[in-house]
Amino acid sequence: MTKPESLVCINGNFVPPEEAFVSVFDRGFLYGDSVYDVTLTYEGIPFLLDSHLDRLESSAQKIAMEIKWKREELTKLIYKGVNKLEGDRHYIRIIITRGGGEIGLDPNLSDGQNLFLIFKELEPYPIEWYQKGVSLVTTEIMKTPKKAMDPSVKSGNYLNNVLALQKAKEKGAYDAVMLNHLGNVTESTSANIWLVEKGTFKTPPLSAGILGGLTRKSVLQIGREQGLEMREIDFNAETLRQADEVFITSSTREILPITKIDGKPIGKGIPGPYTKTLHNHYSNFVKQIIQEEKTKAIKSGLIK
Amino acid sequence: MTKPESLVCINGNFVPPEEAFVSVFDRGFLYGDSVYDVTLTYEGIPFLLDSHLDRLESSAQKIAMEIKWKREELTKLIYKGVNKLEGDRHYIRIIITRGGGEIGLDPNLSDGQNLFLIFKELEPYPIEWYQKGVSLVTTEIMKTPKKAMDPSVKSGNYLNNVLALQKAKEKGAYDAVMLNHLGNVTESTSANIWLVEKGTFKTPPLSAGILGGLTRKSVLQIGREQGLEMREIDFNAETLRQADEVFITSSTREILPITKIDGKPIGKGIPGPYTKTLHNHYSNFVKQIIQEEKTKAIKSGLIK
Repeated sequence: MTKPESLVCINGNFVPPEEAFVSVFDRGFLYGDSVYDVTLTYEGIPFLLDSHLDRLESSAQKIAMEIKWKREELTKLIYKGVNKLEGDRHYIRIIITRGGGEIGLDPNLSDGQNLFLIFKELEPYPIEWYQKGVSLVTTEIMKTPKKAMDPSVKSGNYLNNVLALQKAKEKGAYDAVMLNHLGNVTESTSANIWLVEKGTFKTPPLSAGILGGLTRKSVLQIGREQGLEMREIDFNAETLRQADEVFITSSTREILPITKIDGKPIGKGIPGPYTKTLHNHYSNFVKQIIQEEKTKAIKSGLIK
Repeated sequence: MTKPESLVCINGNFVPPEEAFVSVFDRGFLYGDSVYDVTLTYEGIPFLLDSHLDRLESSAQKIAMEIKWKREELTKLIYKGVNKLEGDRHYIRIIITRGGGEIGLDPNLSDGQNLFLIFKELEPYPIEWYQKGVSLVTTEIMKTPKKAMDPSVKSGNYLNNVLALQKAKEKGAYDAVMLNHLGNVTESTSANIWLVEKGTFKTPPLSAGILGGLTRKSVLQIGREQGLEMREIDFNAETLRQADEVFITSSTREILPITKIDGKPIGKGIPGPYTKTLHNHYSNFVKQIIQEEKTKAIKSGLIK
């Protein structure tokens, strides 16, 4: 029997994607009243799963939602889903909504949370992205400020980012650079932004109003272990454009070189040496983590 | 055969609410990448339907989405739904999402829009709300600024408002007063805010970052026709608390008196004479509009 390439788990029940539905009365659909997180597998092992579940819990907490599934239940369901799938590289999206009930903004109307796990094969990204780098453009759409809706919450409210990406695509760019109310760089629409300036790595601090990316966190740690200078510091779009190297980080894309911003080349217009070296270190880090997580998963009986 | 109390229409097909589902891959569910509007019926006639559809189109336009259904198609479906329902007072929610497709923020991934119409009987609101008034509290959650996500767009991104209402409910209030980055009053989480000061009516201007409420618009017009002084002007929370009378306006609640803000009474702590008189004028306006719309609907064959 061939295994499917994608699969959805709804409140514990596995269904094919074409049968994966949610009620139109679900608050996730009506108001984006939901939280989510995304991880991926290497060798069929969910990467940094505990850290992703920590962040999911933190997102929920920040919107005053107490996740009703226990950590072990979520872990088991995620491994169960992965084991049902074809291939050994998967995208996993975990979504928890505040549920359905009477129509109305008041969360007290909710009749109980709903859990959705989306599993699909992760196709490798085009190799040219990494060999040549991709492009960004700054956008006039301001990053939603922390005081209005904390960008460190991964929620069902992503229209701010959708609109910025739409503008970037119109200009033929890969992604957008979103600025905050002070004109400082925050992040792209789905990744953290980094620059390298005379050998120093810089990325905006959490206070700029960004998502605390797990790849961002790993890169800070790996860089420091390698004796590199890693700084969390505010900078504006002009500083970014003038950098020697620029790259973005995300769980699925790892470390992706940016070689053009607002139509102008970054450095020599090709991926720089610091970016490449860092990516090698990151790949080793991934291998190490996956070995550790595999050992742990075998011990806990999550995989054979 | 008894008629149902609620009903959902999905892309033209009518289903009972318990069978009304949307794919978990729909962008409305994943990112809140959708627009909506809400109207109601009086005597079974959708109120100001054209104005609501105008606003729906305006919301869509502001997120660069061109609605694929023609005005006449939407109108026909809405009347069809209303005619299938029990009672003559209904709530109608019109939702259009950017559709499903591959997971990703880029709207170009969409495989086509989806239309959802939710119809349900509108229960009368408690009479005490109007006799005694309800309470508001100011909240520390800032209204999402126009530059980030225009609040004049009714979209699937309502978490900012959900969180503010949640805070208000924790404090035992009916609704929240949301302030903008300048500390000026914008709106409640689902209604426009008004004050009366020495016989002058004031409401924040559109530039404060608010939804252009249709009841707000009607009230401005009605008040002016009655020779009342109606001003669109910025004011802060303290001015609101010091007002002689305060009320909120929305399509479903019409004109609802606010008699307490942040625990302190407004004026004498009971609904004021200007608010009551205005509500009478508004009720007459509604009757007149409904007669006109009924005549039009009969002529166009939408009702018998």
